Amino acid sequence: MNAAPAFKKIALIGFGLIGGSIARAARQQGLADAIVTTARSAKSRARVKELGIVDDVLETNAEAVKDADLVILCIPVGACGAVAQEIADHLKPGAIVSDVGSVKGAVVRDMAPHLPASAHFVPAHPVAGTENSGPDSGFAELFIDRWCILTPPDGTDPDAVERLRAFWAGLGARVEIMTPDHHDLVLAITSHLPHLIAYTIVGTADELEGVTQSEVLKFSAGGFRDFTRIAASDPIMWRDVFLTNKEAVLEMLGTFNEDLSKLTRAIRRGDGEALFEHFTRTRAIRRGIVEIGQDSAAPDFGRPHAQLGKKAE
Amino acid sequence: MNAAPAFKKIALIGFGLIGGSIARAARQQGLADAIVTTARSAKSRARVKELGIVDDVLETNAEAVKDADLVILCIPVGACGAVAQEIADHLKPGAIVSDVGSVKGAVVRDMAPHLPASAHFVPAHPVAGTENSGPDSGFAELFIDRWCILTPPDGTDPDAVERLRAFWAGLGARVEIMTPDHHDLVLAITSHLPHLIAYTIVGTADELEGVTQSEVLKFSAGGFRDFTRIAASDPIMWRDVFLTNKEAVLEMLGTFNEDLSKLTRAIRRGDGEALFEHFTRTRAIRRGIVEIGQDSAAPDFGRPHAQLGKKAE
Ligand SMILES: NC(=O)c1ccc[n+]([C@@H]2O[C@H](COP(=O)([O-])OP(=O)(O)OC[C@H]3O[C@@H](n4cnc5c(N)ncnc54)[C@H](OP(=O)(O)O)[C@@H]3O)[C@@H](O)[C@H]2O)c1
Ligand SMILES: NC(=O)c1ccc[n+]([C@@H]2O[C@H](COP(=O)([O-])OP(=O)(O)OC[C@H]3O[C@@H](n4cnc5c(N)ncnc54)[C@H](OP(=O)(O)O)[C@@H]3O)[C@@H](O)[C@H]2O)c1
Repeated sequence: MNAAPAFKKIALIGFGLIGGSIARAARQQGLADAIVTTARSAKSRARVKELGIVDDVLETNAEAVKDADLVILCIPVGACGAVAQEIADHLKPGAIVSDVGSVKGAVVRDMAPHLPASAHFVPAHPVAGTENSGPDSGFAELFIDRWCILTPPDGTDPDAVERLRAFWAGLGARVEIMTPDHHDLVLAITSHLPHLIAYTIVGTADELEGVTQSEVLKFSAGGFRDFTRIAASDPIMWRDVFLTNKEAVLEMLGTFNEDLSKLTRAIRRGDGEALFEHFTRTRAIRRGIVEIGQDSAAPDFGRPHAQLGKKAE
Repeated sequence: MNAAPAFKKIALIGFGLIGGSIARAARQQGLADAIVTTARSAKSRARVKELGIVDDVLETNAEAVKDADLVILCIPVGACGAVAQEIADHLKPGAIVSDVGSVKGAVVRDMAPHLPASAHFVPAHPVAGTENSGPDSGFAELFIDRWCILTPPDGTDPDAVERLRAFWAGLGARVEIMTPDHHDLVLAITSHLPHLIAYTIVGTADELEGVTQSEVLKFSAGGFRDFTRIAASDPIMWRDVFLTNKEAVLEMLGTFNEDLSKLTRAIRRGDGEALFEHFTRTRAIRRGIVEIGQDSAAPDFGRPHAQLGKKAE
């Protein structure tokens, strides 16, 4: 006997990497009777229709949320306030309203004032992604074994939180609950600062005088290419992250700059012992990440390799 | 009819990631009649014997180079001078002596004075690697489609350069020739600075007050985990790189710091347009790298994903 799906109708506002991955996984796992969606542009909406993953593609956000038990905003952080305002009057009483934004303090600040008391607001952030975006970029496996952080405001209905937790568990994720402020601090170091640094160094390499761009590309396998993947992420998404998580990012950046100065001094002085000590310490962190299953143990992320042909005879 | 191998006897001094990969690929491609090797420690030598990839494992560097037509030092940059001194008197006249060090100016400076005029010194650096090291970490495919840079001193016998070029081409690599100084500048931006930055940020994350180490590990999939792979590279190798390529690294670091200050100012001021413009520009570089075959086009480096189980019935 099949258990009844947890939600009758889910509405996804936005169908890019994250919205599209939720749709594919929720469909595959049977987590809803119906999944409907919308996207901002007519072009994306047309593409989502073609993909045929969801039951209906609506023209407006207001239409999309009609009768939905779960509404998830899968759009850039900076757009969440305006969309909350748009959908507020059209929400079904008792609906759970959530999001997937990479910053939580600003999303709560922007969305909460607009939402009716009859809706349950449970913000969320799945810590999973790739450098791609758009309707075709999602896949059902994206959230498996990754963490999804929920930041329900004080006093949120525990039943609503539990239903959203179970939903994310159904998509394959592990779920953790914390405050929006703590989320923003943690993600500043595990995601936002790494992106800022990657965007910086890729920009630096692009504008050098003594090294040509062709050389930068050719010899990028020495480490640089890894940073270019991160620095190929969506510019709007990341602009919004840095505009809305300014304080935490600047705090982490301050500590990073101090640490970089220390290592720079060690290089300038030729202090091999200090360098060796630092480089030894950082190895343990990689081991920890692989041990808890947050990255592959395969060398070089398991990047594919061509085969050597046999020597010509 | 099989063509005769290009070299009668190749001696690899050091059998770690790079030496071990050369041995495996050269064997597979039949690039030598005999391949012999040595490693510094008895433990590594014993392991290499067990692996059974090479024809002989010698106890000393001097013994290893005896009668070899091609000698390749596959050891940390800082050790190359002393080893050149050790082998100098035992080299076969006409032998090609090379290395694989990640810095070239210092290697040339340290090795050249010791080598006899009868040897052909052709320094090399294959721009390929993983975060692993030791006798078991190598694999025959490592160099396929990667670049190997040769930095022959002025006046080097063109025939020796050509033979080494053909050897690396046989391992699957593309070969480029440049001066040691230019090599060190190019690699400072495409490899050394990325490693320094990664080592720094992983150290920063390790010592935060407001975020626990367990949180850093759990939520590392937001971007941080990529940096931990690079920061898990061998501490001795990287200590030597920063000790020997100080000037170029400090120069790149200066430019990087300026660029980071600019982006920091944009964040502080909330200048979304500047951020968006920068983040858009960096995307093109990733595309360029994928187009010329220096990285996989698969999202997230093609990292493996588990499958979703079917919903429990
Ligand atoms: N990418 C990641 O790795 C990742 C990971 C975790 C969380 N997140 C968060 O997930 C959210 C969505 O990211 P994504 O990667 O899925 O982005 P995406 O692939 O670019 O998709 C964004 C979606 O939002 C729509 N949209 C864009 N601007 C909008 C606006 N001003 N108003 C209404 N809709 C708008 C887009 O519509 P059109 O297609 O018509 O433009 C598209 O459907 C962001 O808040 C991001 O912080 C991303
Ligand atoms: N790893 C990379 O990604 C990469 C890429 C391109 C170039 N390189 C360059 O390749 C060289 C070797 O790196 P690797 O990754 O192959 O290192 P590895 O796996 O750690 O192997 C190093 C080898 O050198 C030996 N060795 C260490 N210290 C020595 C010393 N003081 N005197 C003599 N032998 C010594 C080791 O012997 P034991 O095993 O007995 O300690 C081992 O056989 C370095 O110069 C590096 O800059 C590395």
